[in-house]
Amino acid sequence: MSDCDLDVVGIGNAIVDVLAASDDEFLTGHGIAKGAMTLIDAVRAETLYGSMGPGIECSGGSAANTIAGIAGLGGRAGFIGKVKDDQLGRVFIHDLRSTGAVFDSTPAADGTSTARCLIMVTPDAQRTMNTYLGACVELGPGDIDAGLIGRAAITYLEGYLWDPPEAKKAFRKAIDIAHGAGRKVALTLSDAFCVDRFRDEFRRLIEDEIDILFANEQEIISLYRSADFDGAVQQVRPHCNVVALTRSEKGCVILGNDEIHIIDAAPVDKVVDTTGAGDLFAAGFLYGLTNNRGLAECGRIGGLCAAEIISHYGARPEADLSALLNG
Amino acid sequence: MSDCDLDVVGIGNAIVDVLAASDDEFLTGHGIAKGAMTLIDAVRAETLYGSMGPGIECSGGSAANTIAGIAGLGGRAGFIGKVKDDQLGRVFIHDLRSTGAVFDSTPAADGTSTARCLIMVTPDAQRTMNTYLGACVELGPGDIDAGLIGRAAITYLEGYLWDPPEAKKAFRKAIDIAHGAGRKVALTLSDAFCVDRFRDEFRRLIEDEIDILFANEQEIISLYRSADFDGAVQQVRPHCNVVALTRSEKGCVILGNDEIHIIDAAPVDKVVDTTGAGDLFAAGFLYGLTNNRGLAECGRIGGLCAAEIISHYGARPEADLSALLNG
Repeated sequence: MSDCDLDVVGIGNAIVDVLAASDDEFLTGHGIAKGAMTLIDAVRAETLYGSMGPGIECSGGSAANTIAGIAGLGGRAGFIGKVKDDQLGRVFIHDLRSTGAVFDSTPAADGTSTARCLIMVTPDAQRTMNTYLGACVELGPGDIDAGLIGRAAITYLEGYLWDPPEAKKAFRKAIDIAHGAGRKVALTLSDAFCVDRFRDEFRRLIEDEIDILFANEQEIISLYRSADFDGAVQQVRPHCNVVALTRSEKGCVILGNDEIHIIDAAPVDKVVDTTGAGDLFAAGFLYGLTNNRGLAECGRIGGLCAAEIISHYGARPEADLSALLNG
Repeated sequence: MSDCDLDVVGIGNAIVDVLAASDDEFLTGHGIAKGAMTLIDAVRAETLYGSMGPGIECSGGSAANTIAGIAGLGGRAGFIGKVKDDQLGRVFIHDLRSTGAVFDSTPAADGTSTARCLIMVTPDAQRTMNTYLGACVELGPGDIDAGLIGRAAITYLEGYLWDPPEAKKAFRKAIDIAHGAGRKVALTLSDAFCVDRFRDEFRRLIEDEIDILFANEQEIISLYRSADFDGAVQQVRPHCNVVALTRSEKGCVILGNDEIHIIDAAPVDKVVDTTGAGDLFAAGFLYGLTNNRGLAECGRIGGLCAAEIISHYGARPEADLSALLNG
């Protein structure tokens, strides 16, 4: 991959997170599925925000979090996603560019506002997400910068892109460009409910197109409707060159051709907010992979990054990840 | 004070904070006075933001932080301040109202955007603030709700209000209304440089108008140009009914008529970001005072709230302060 001047380009929904402490009663009272990502419309967003507690705003978006993490580790990364040219859109652009990542997607001049994800963090540190996609629905094939994708060893896609219809087309276009240029394509399954919405399409993608797959335990079980984790492992084994399966405090399982590694989770003093755990695991893993580390070491770096992100509010690193890795 | 249905009404600059990790080189490279609050214009704000690292956004404003803290402790609180009707203005309104505080100031429909404070947090957890006042300069005497002030036992003012000229007039009007209704007036000196800008006016205010004074060590020394902390203590003693002087890790000194209390700081596992330490001390102290606690106990509650706020990024509480107090 020495002819690439970028390690990873991510494509995803460009979202600003609004995080607030919550309790389980709030979730049940508002009929929200705990731990999931639920799409909401503008009216529901107003209602939920009006009843949420005081929050903090932090740039988010699954693939964008991963790209910020890779840049924080010292990797060379880029992002494609759609914000509106509004206050939160400018915050999103600032936060990503200031990590050193390339982000040149044109903001929408009008239309709906920059996407927001209302995240309730319960005392068990679980995050429950309610996403108003806003300007993300404007992302389409025309936003896919073939030059940028050709520059990157890996193009990283989030399963959430399957929700906005035009983004799905953008996603497919990106895969074709990446493979046409001899690059790898990585996918994260994003969310068990998202898998449920697009199970057959995701299965075909994984069989035919995806080189590197990320999923957590619930997602991979949902994908194959298997009875347990091991059942899903057996089903996914024949597919993709590399599969990274995360299991929260149980660590991760990495599959690659004939290799299989079972890696323990990195220790965390206090789990505060699990938002972004999977995204930062992917960041560490992809950083390792594009820096020619072995698969087990990639899993360990992923675990370290996940441990940092769950020790504070928000899905963007507060610590210097590069120092953490080398410290 | 039993005829009051509010404990404290705060008047202050309505600001959204943008916090980012920084190093000392960044501050010196941009000619920023470490630990201070510096006023900046829109152009400087663009430049600094463009060179800052990725941030988190969190509602701020000194008096507004105090009001959010009082509400979080279970106190009855209100706020007067000026945002614009834009995305960050709506975030500010949401975050304050969702604490339970009364906040009915009319947002500006046009003009400059909601105020922003660019805060660099260095590895020593010190915060350095650069404030673009934006819509705050629109706050004037017409925004002072006499009814709201008459409802509150204490009207709490931040020294920072001396910077926007119309706000100073609003400040004086609020004092007259509060005293006319037989209420108390509290002031925080806000910042040593702010004291330096308005030393004579602040001294006269403290001699003539202020019942309860908050200051940290640098501010009270700046006010009297005294050689050391004890010199300033002797100078301020004849003034105000109550004086609360905070000294970071050395705790606080409380003066009240013939009483003097020297209270140790509450323990903190790890100091992450000192933004809002003084504001939350004032919250705890005023909550104690309006709940008829002794002065020493007020100082201790202030210390507990300050300890919570410096253990994480941002100047609004993450923990349930009421539970913290009673836990």
